[in-house]
Amino acid sequence: MSTTRSMMAAHPDGEPSLGQALTACIEAAFSCAQASDACADACMAEETIVELRKCIRLSLDCADLCMTTGRFLSRLNEVDGNLLKTILMACRDFCTTTAIEYEKHADMYAYCRIAAEACRRCEQACQDLLPRPF
Amino acid sequence: MSTTRSMMAAHPDGEPSLGQALTACIEAAFSCAQASDACADACMAEETIVELRKCIRLSLDCADLCMTTGRFLSRLNEVDGNLLKTILMACRDFCTTTAIEYEKHADMYAYCRIAAEACRRCEQACQDLLPRPF
Amino acid sequence: MSTTRSMMAAHPDGEPSLGQALTACIEAAFSCAQASDACADACMAEETIVELRKCIRLSLDCADLCMTTGRFLSRLNEVDGNLLKTILMACRDFCTTTAIEYEKHADMYAYCRIAAEACRRCEQACQDLLPRPF
Amino acid sequence: MSTTRSMMAAHPDGEPSLGQALTACIEAAFSCAQASDACADACMAEETIVELRKCIRLSLDCADLCMTTGRFLSRLNEVDGNLLKTILMACRDFCTTTAIEYEKHADMYAYCRIAAEACRRCEQACQDLLPRPF
Repeated sequence: MSTTRSMMAAHPDGEPSLGQALTACIEAAFSCAQASDACADACMAEETIVELRKCIRLSLDCADLCMTTGRFLSRLNEVDGNLLKTILMACRDFCTTTAIEYEKHADMYAYCRIAAEACRRCEQACQDLLPRPF
Repeated sequence: MSTTRSMMAAHPDGEPSLGQALTACIEAAFSCAQASDACADACMAEETIVELRKCIRLSLDCADLCMTTGRFLSRLNEVDGNLLKTILMACRDFCTTTAIEYEKHADMYAYCRIAAEACRRCEQACQDLLPRPF
Repeated sequence: MSTTRSMMAAHPDGEPSLGQALTACIEAAFSCAQASDACADACMAEETIVELRKCIRLSLDCADLCMTTGRFLSRLNEVDGNLLKTILMACRDFCTTTAIEYEKHADMYAYCRIAAEACRRCEQACQDLLPRPF
Repeated sequence: MSTTRSMMAAHPDGEPSLGQALTACIEAAFSCAQASDACADACMAEETIVELRKCIRLSLDCADLCMTTGRFLSRLNEVDGNLLKTILMACRDFCTTTAIEYEKHADMYAYCRIAAEACRRCEQACQDLLPRPF
């Protein structure tokens, strides 16, 4: 069991039935944040950096919002259903847009392909969590 | 002229006509983030902390998202209009919900009143920036 | 291979010999950040919240700094050896202090025990990375 | 009186004698974070982006750590003197290194000059707060 799974299960307000989808989304969000930060930095090391500007910019935005989403989902006190929905949809949309950009460069740069996969997993995890009642 | 205003004006992609509304929103977002973090901490120092749980939780969420919004708006390269709209609306909604909670405690705690004002300013600044073309 | 490991290995400036220690530290930092945020929130759900104030406060600080450290380490361009040392030592010290506080409550609250373990792993990962040349 | 000053003064643990130096440091940290994020983005819009890689990388690090420092200083509960010192020194050192890099480009790019000034103010504010007892 991952540390995140153990933490969420041990929380006094932890809801076992919700646990796995929630943990999956937290882990996907932090994984996507890390991949996005690393992708921005990897792009900056390329000769072709000028063509990768959009990629870098979206990476930074995506990393920031995924981290904020991961932190939000780590809190189980007094969950506001509307704000939960708002942030899940926003995070999903940032991941979609960023993944589309990464996929354009995926054949050229392995890290863009790996980061695209991380974005797609986070997009899906947000989508899966959306209909869940908190 | 504030440092933020000077920075945004000196940016190669800086758009003078947009400048003031954008700067106002960045400054309102960081000010609201700081007030929210300080409000969470001030609530934790009260005897009545148990009744302030919702206030603390919303403060942390609001601080995180306002900071992410302030960073997003500080980037002028390759702005994606849909993501801009998404984050402005999300930030506005977080500020509204947090302000409503703060306002319940505003008579009792001066810092809740001040933080509510910071949230309302950020909510308004996001709203004002929404119809602007980037 | 984890997404973080794949990303760091695919980076144009990736250094194979450094890879594992670096990946371990990035993953430990994000894991500790998540556990710390969740621990702060879990403490807020307890009746004994008043006695857990120090725990909550340190959790928030530790989460913020571990996330900043994870982001810093995800960048391989133009690494400044002094800043690397500075942030690794700061992160290690925050983790040590937070772990000591968590360990006081570890018998009572399972999440404090789990979060303490996450802090100790991050503390150790920072320490292990300190003597490495970048 | 700024919102930050009002918030810190209204905090139950607010220490009037400390207030101004603390508020100055929080405001300098967030101002430097914003300027650094904007500087990274402005550099990315230049034709000379390849020569600005170090500038961009340091900007991102500096922004992250200044924000973490601003959040840390916004908390007055259970201040740990050693961690306060650690983060003030780390933030000061990040600002010094980033300012030195910005100053190399200050004649060429107005935003590098403005961001350098923001770094120097934050460096000084951290230094001024270091000897204060909490």
